[in-house]
Amino acid sequence: MPRYRFLIEYDGSEFYGWQRQPHGPSVQAAIEDALARLTGEQPVVIGAGRTDSGVHALGQVAHADLSKIWTANRLRDALNAHLRETSRETSISILLVDAVETGFHARFSASERHYLYRIVNRRAPLALENRRAWQVMRRLDSDAMASAARCLVGTHDFTTFRSTECQAPSAVKTLNSLDVLRHGETVEITARARSFLHNQVRSMVGSLKLVGEGKWSENDLLAALAAQDRAACGPVAPPWGLYLAAVRYD
Amino acid sequence: MPRYRFLIEYDGSEFYGWQRQPHGPSVQAAIEDALARLTGEQPVVIGAGRTDSGVHALGQVAHADLSKIWTANRLRDALNAHLRETSRETSISILLVDAVETGFHARFSASERHYLYRIVNRRAPLALENRRAWQVMRRLDSDAMASAARCLVGTHDFTTFRSTECQAPSAVKTLNSLDVLRHGETVEITARARSFLHNQVRSMVGSLKLVGEGKWSENDLLAALAAQDRAACGPVAPPWGLYLAAVRYD
Repeated sequence: MPRYRFLIEYDGSEFYGWQRQPHGPSVQAAIEDALARLTGEQPVVIGAGRTDSGVHALGQVAHADLSKIWTANRLRDALNAHLRETSRETSISILLVDAVETGFHARFSASERHYLYRIVNRRAPLALENRRAWQVMRRLDSDAMASAARCLVGTHDFTTFRSTECQAPSAVKTLNSLDVLRHGETVEITARARSFLHNQVRSMVGSLKLVGEGKWSENDLLAALAAQDRAACGPVAPPWGLYLAAVRYD
Repeated sequence: MPRYRFLIEYDGSEFYGWQRQPHGPSVQAAIEDALARLTGEQPVVIGAGRTDSGVHALGQVAHADLSKIWTANRLRDALNAHLRETSRETSISILLVDAVETGFHARFSASERHYLYRIVNRRAPLALENRRAWQVMRRLDSDAMASAARCLVGTHDFTTFRSTECQAPSAVKTLNSLDVLRHGETVEITARARSFLHNQVRSMVGSLKLVGEGKWSENDLLAALAAQDRAACGPVAPPWGLYLAAVRYD
């Protein structure tokens, strides 16, 4: 059966995360159901990243096998039409479709995942970016955050920065980059790695925020990492600032 | 009575426009009601721009007279708290408050208004910028749009580009600038003038879109302007791409 790859944007605030589950709408289920209505088949859609409830995607990647051969753009447009049918508003958009070899696997073939975390650093509430960014009132020192972030780059045991529900067999991961940049009142944190532990980005961002507020020094962050203890982590940042930005394949 | 100036951000999709009216929620009424709950008075809030239903603001300016003397930041925070009380989500945010002289008038003292119109030029629907930008599928030639836009700058009779419901005594206005810039898939149009006619920006954007699509030449746009006839205007652009970006005072 031909295999298709999908590049997907979504507003995570409408869903209980990527993964299909019994108690609420998920992105995976919405796409699978739209594909089922379109094709009459029951395709399984495999995503590169299993984003949590409230987490957005600018460039989630997924694959599915369909029996029919489709023109890529026709499949994209038809799938978008079916996705729109069942929701009042567009909350999932298929940006691109392409045919891939059957050896391609959205999750296992991925060589790097990019996450973006957006903080709006101001006193006033967010009217236009509500549920699209984390509002932090206290002035953040983004240079201190950027410097501290560099301590987390590389191969480490990230036990401190993973959810107690994380099911990965090992907490040792290699963080390729962790950058902090301020543009006006926005502070953007970008993280790149082959793969991440559950809640790893939000846990790192929550601790970096403490550094930005001056509550933690760079050494406090290093000590938290070295503790290899979930209790040493700062409060986890909320999901609505997090975006799965891109997935790379070699 | 001391007069206060407010800098205001809002998500216009939640409102039937700026101006108080009997049939639905408005930004003016929401702020007046919050101020009334806060102060026990019935202050009137005067805005610089009477944005239509669905139009957003990054920097609306308004003023109101209150009998009590407030610290600016305390008034801002208290007003934001009262605004939040009555809505499920934050859709209005008071960014700044300052005390002004009683001669200051948000509408009549304004020397320039800046509007921003955001187009996302792509085939796929907008999941994250839904109701925040106009999705235009056909590839837009933003250079052609920028060149044509310059024809509209200056003092002209803008009858073609104003709503038939516009109540301004004259259709002659001076457009200080009208710029078109592409950033990736986003095309941003910025317009500056002392004041605008009703629907003027959306009317100009709707016609510039025809130029971008190649359906109109620059001469077609000039002919539409010269016609001084509403029927010569292209289809008016939708409200959800428009932002009142800033208001200047001398």
